[in-house]
Amino acid sequence: MADPEAVAKAFTDHYYATFDTARNNLAGLYQDQSMLTFEGQKFQGTQAILQKLTSLPFQQCKHHISSLDAQPSLSGGVLVFVTGQLLPEGETNPLKFSQTFHLAPVGGSYVVTNDLFRLNYG
Amino acid sequence: MADPEAVAKAFTDHYYATFDTARNNLAGLYQDQSMLTFEGQKFQGTQAILQKLTSLPFQQCKHHISSLDAQPSLSGGVLVFVTGQLLPEGETNPLKFSQTFHLAPVGGSYVVTNDLFRLNYG
Repeated sequence: MADPEAVAKAFTDHYYATFDTARNNLAGLYQDQSMLTFEGQKFQGTQAILQKLTSLPFQQCKHHISSLDAQPSLSGGVLVFVTGQLLPEGETNPLKFSQTFHLAPVGGSYVVTNDLFRLNYG
Repeated sequence: MADPEAVAKAFTDHYYATFDTARNNLAGLYQDQSMLTFEGQKFQGTQAILQKLTSLPFQQCKHHISSLDAQPSLSGGVLVFVTGQLLPEGETNPLKFSQTFHLAPVGGSYVVTNDLFRLNYG
């Protein structure tokens, strides 16, 4: 299978660049079985996930990645584990976050089957 | 399948209680395919993982869980996503951490197939 680190790097480069500028375009990365847990709130399916992501109270933002780890999963997917900082536009204090993605291979590319996001307060 | 939240709660209760008092006893939770990425360092298999965990520069510690999220994975496993604080014995400043486990069902219980750990500095 593909190198998990290379998959994780390519995926997160694309995901956060898209998130930061045009969240609607993330739709192609999710599918109907995809699950998102965002600050403890649960969403399933592309439509529910995109509705949540596009309703966050800022139009643009900037993700800065502090660490990026990857492992292959038993199902042939890739686990991606990110820590970093998120700066919504107009804000001056970045928010620390952690995020885990489980990617599944589909037709030569990958979709997000699991997405878990938490802000790290304190 | 079992309720992912219930699995995650039971697993993390057991895992961190064991970690905090007798890390050697974590051996039964890993297997030869298990992978650990600890602060970017990679280990595979029960022996290598336990060697790393038992060589951390403290004998006992205390984990405090700030958030615990869980999702079923496509392979019939459970993704467990933890943020919290770790206080090594003798220290007064807890360290913030994030950790992701991928659990696979084996004979009525679960083993850790993937374990990714990061301290959250700053």
